[in-house]
Amino acid sequence: MSLWLSGIGVSRGIAIARVQKMHGGDLEVPEYTLPEVEIEQEVSRFYGAQRKARDQLRAVRQQIPGGTPGEIAAFIDTHLLMMEDRSLTEAVVALIREHSINAEAALRRQRDALVAVFEQMDDPYLRTRKDDVDHVVARIQRILLKSERQIAPKTEGAEPFIMVSDDITPADIILLSQQNVAAFITEYGGPLSHTAILARSLGIPAIVGLRDARKLLRENETVIVDGEAGHVLADPDAKALDFYLRKQEHQAQYRRDLVKLKGKAAISQDGIKIHLLANIELLEDAAEAVANGAEGIGLYRTEFLYMNRKGLPSEEEQYEAYSRIVAAVQGPITIRTLDLGADKQVDSGRSNGPTPNNPALGLRAIRLCLKEPELFRVQVRALLRASAHGKVQIMLPMISNLQELRQSQQIIESSREELRNEGYKVADEVPIGTMIEVPAAAIAAPMLARHSRFFSIGTNDLIQYTLAIDRVDDEVNYLYDPLHPAVLRLIHMTIEAGIQAGIPVAMCGEMAGDPRYTRLLLGLGLTEFSMHPANVLEIKRIIIESNIGELKRKVKQLLTSLDPVEMRDLIDGLDA
Amino acid sequence: MSLWLSGIGVSRGIAIARVQKMHGGDLEVPEYTLPEVEIEQEVSRFYGAQRKARDQLRAVRQQIPGGTPGEIAAFIDTHLLMMEDRSLTEAVVALIREHSINAEAALRRQRDALVAVFEQMDDPYLRTRKDDVDHVVARIQRILLKSERQIAPKTEGAEPFIMVSDDITPADIILLSQQNVAAFITEYGGPLSHTAILARSLGIPAIVGLRDARKLLRENETVIVDGEAGHVLADPDAKALDFYLRKQEHQAQYRRDLVKLKGKAAISQDGIKIHLLANIELLEDAAEAVANGAEGIGLYRTEFLYMNRKGLPSEEEQYEAYSRIVAAVQGPITIRTLDLGADKQVDSGRSNGPTPNNPALGLRAIRLCLKEPELFRVQVRALLRASAHGKVQIMLPMISNLQELRQSQQIIESSREELRNEGYKVADEVPIGTMIEVPAAAIAAPMLARHSRFFSIGTNDLIQYTLAIDRVDDEVNYLYDPLHPAVLRLIHMTIEAGIQAGIPVAMCGEMAGDPRYTRLLLGLGLTEFSMHPANVLEIKRIIIESNIGELKRKVKQLLTSLDPVEMRDLIDGLDA
Repeated sequence: MSLWLSGIGVSRGIAIARVQKMHGGDLEVPEYTLPEVEIEQEVSRFYGAQRKARDQLRAVRQQIPGGTPGEIAAFIDTHLLMMEDRSLTEAVVALIREHSINAEAALRRQRDALVAVFEQMDDPYLRTRKDDVDHVVARIQRILLKSERQIAPKTEGAEPFIMVSDDITPADIILLSQQNVAAFITEYGGPLSHTAILARSLGIPAIVGLRDARKLLRENETVIVDGEAGHVLADPDAKALDFYLRKQEHQAQYRRDLVKLKGKAAISQDGIKIHLLANIELLEDAAEAVANGAEGIGLYRTEFLYMNRKGLPSEEEQYEAYSRIVAAVQGPITIRTLDLGADKQVDSGRSNGPTPNNPALGLRAIRLCLKEPELFRVQVRALLRASAHGKVQIMLPMISNLQELRQSQQIIESSREELRNEGYKVADEVPIGTMIEVPAAAIAAPMLARHSRFFSIGTNDLIQYTLAIDRVDDEVNYLYDPLHPAVLRLIHMTIEAGIQAGIPVAMCGEMAGDPRYTRLLLGLGLTEFSMHPANVLEIKRIIIESNIGELKRKVKQLLTSLDPVEMRDLIDGLDA
Repeated sequence: MSLWLSGIGVSRGIAIARVQKMHGGDLEVPEYTLPEVEIEQEVSRFYGAQRKARDQLRAVRQQIPGGTPGEIAAFIDTHLLMMEDRSLTEAVVALIREHSINAEAALRRQRDALVAVFEQMDDPYLRTRKDDVDHVVARIQRILLKSERQIAPKTEGAEPFIMVSDDITPADIILLSQQNVAAFITEYGGPLSHTAILARSLGIPAIVGLRDARKLLRENETVIVDGEAGHVLADPDAKALDFYLRKQEHQAQYRRDLVKLKGKAAISQDGIKIHLLANIELLEDAAEAVANGAEGIGLYRTEFLYMNRKGLPSEEEQYEAYSRIVAAVQGPITIRTLDLGADKQVDSGRSNGPTPNNPALGLRAIRLCLKEPELFRVQVRALLRASAHGKVQIMLPMISNLQELRQSQQIIESSREELRNEGYKVADEVPIGTMIEVPAAAIAAPMLARHSRFFSIGTNDLIQYTLAIDRVDDEVNYLYDPLHPAVLRLIHMTIEAGIQAGIPVAMCGEMAGDPRYTRLLLGLGLTEFSMHPANVLEIKRIIIESNIGELKRKVKQLLTSLDPVEMRDLIDGLDA
């Protein structure tokens, strides 16, 4: 009999294949005290396991085939760096010696301490970095416990299979992607997990958060995975098989068609040119962005320079990193200044105050930068120097009032003067823009627009603050709703304020890269979309097929509706 | 030479008197291990100290003079309850026995555990409850450590004095208020601290958070305290003395004039009637509200029934509490349903999940009630039954979308049916209203207004979410700004939506009781102000002196300004 299961669809596509389960998920970590004489032997055992784990990862790193998106190698590199970091080597050894405990127990204690730090973070994306710690720790732990998972070696001509596991590491994803894996199903993880990001990058369908998947699905049975809907159908009947086979072929055709759009401009049916930009983080992403036809970078995140390290990056180090990426991009590159919170691992030698009760409503982003202008000034100088190599724009996150904007501009202007006096080259034009992600900024957009060269709407935070929810909090994330009438009004107000003031308005939140919202955003008047490079072609296709004038008329009507149900119907009607 | 100091002015008024310092602030708590045979002796020592502390508090309770605002006795009652609670008796004894430690150390550990719970709370008002724990614990600790503070006994005809201390307990405030205390200056505390609340209730000027006050001020020197500005002037010259003496007399005259307004209606110069209501929490507050001429209760907080106790209050218990208060109030009484977060001490037997990262953006208020409809239904039934005794209105906190409102209404309606079938009396009319405190609710106010019988704007939360700041977070509270253009627009949008839909719009946040904002709010079209009972007369006076039509014209102009500085000037101009 057929069985329907539902998880969180995180990577689109239909897969039809047999189940293969990965066993050995949960590790039982024993804790025991060691006699004094065995301590150093235990330390050696730990170092041995740590080295073996590192060698395994290095081997995976070398197996990454050419043409694989850069971010995948970056994940492994992050894991390698972590594995050699003091916090996972000397700190663990210190625990073994201090408490006379076994290596597994020391490693678990250290893991708990590290994870606690990540769990405090307010950026949901950065918070998932705790998974990296878990993956790295689990690899060492498995070696210590002699319970290593085995990914079967690559076999030529093997049948495709669907990997069902508790969770999956980036390294395993890479190994499996070189075999004939058709889809991933995991019991844990969410839409922002690394499994999700990597599966999307590799174009492999994936469903995460499907509780008890290993219990509910049988080894070797045939299942259908719909990575968009998040559905799994086990033991399908002929009718279902036929339906999904045709859906699969339809999607394959769609993707083949998309590739043809690479060189085409994003011009709507009624002749309106839309700008498609990419959100990136690493140098490698820039290449992918260009390959997918992005015209420039709408959001370059700079936080990674500050993370996973001791001390702060110097001006020189930052200048070099920014220059490389600026030089690799043809079009404009919008660089967001530091968007970290006070609770982040920025080791700037500041005295650490108490953890805030609500870090998302605390000292972060531009607030932190204005409180510690020297931290900000170092980054600003590096950005201005990098502007000599391309079309740099500076974007300020978390602005909530005009004073913060003016204060930031003053620091940037005085840094420019300084650099000129010191003989550095700085571009004549480095537009300074405001991220609209605090409700107050959207409502006061007409005021901020008079002092900004551009706006960029950060929908993720804007939605969270407007609805007063933390999307990473499982208890309330059901309230996260990009289509909430208040959200649509704020986006509309921001775009209108930009038009009135004659400045461009972009959007760099997730909504911009989600094809479900493209017509709506076009109707709201958005003309610049910045998104993950992988989404550019699909959004382009929708734009090319749209009549924006008509969408605007429909959206104008739905914005005046006082009934949310009617509003949803009108939004659904935009697809017609 | 004169010395100017600045703290946080929390209770208005001018005082001119000599400094008297309270010494013995910080307690050094030693920790040591006890031999087995001394453990029970230590337990007895602890119980002895606990009993002595309780007797001291009871003595204070009995000394409260008639006519003292009810909330003052309530503070002491809370402390007495706490002092006898298991968490401060048996739990401490268990720690002594379990760890073989001294009573002081056990008490400190237990204090830290209790405070950690309160620090997680998102309601800044409830979070100050941690001060209660500290005061109660400190009283026992001082007895254990034999370092009791002495408030000098009352002396007839003694000179007035200004009490300067590190912090001050409600009990000490009561003792001092019976002596000739002219003002309080403390080194710790904020505008929401109990010192602040009690000093305001008693009409004694107070300045809190004046760091190092005991070091900077000399015993017995004459100082001037301006409780509104938060200024202290030590060793004033003749000119300053003269200025403040005249200011003092002016204020005394103002208060005498205010009292004459008690029976007068709040009608503006141009004949517009404004409704003045009170925010209350306890039965005793209701009497004060009536005494100060409030026409009804705009906000009755129900959280205290749920706090500091084991288990949840039963329907019967709640019904009795609500009935008493409803019967004591002449006008309408707007009761807010449970506004607690999942992290609060609500002991409902639910499994406790992990502490949310951002409780203010988490499962709280109506979200919690809709997730646990049985919890909600018990309160709703008690409220509906109490409606038989007066003009009850039900107000729903933290509504962020129409669905939550409709769902709550359905639960209330089905509870009403149930009660009728069970033969209970329920008022025919129990209007259900929406609190506007989430930005999404203010922006979508036209939608919510069609389904609400009234609105009440909760400015405290609305400001926090709109500006994405936690006001209790010292790092960002400088951004808290009731005059932010975005806040004013949201208030205006909400009032306009109410007018369009023909429903009344009240405001029950702190702005409503702050005389600095009264003219602005009148100009924004607000017609119902709900505030601490002590503020009613002053707000009434401003209303009586105002020409609302004129204020509306001015406010309309300032709302269209695109320059925040000009906007502030126009707001200041409303006073003219």
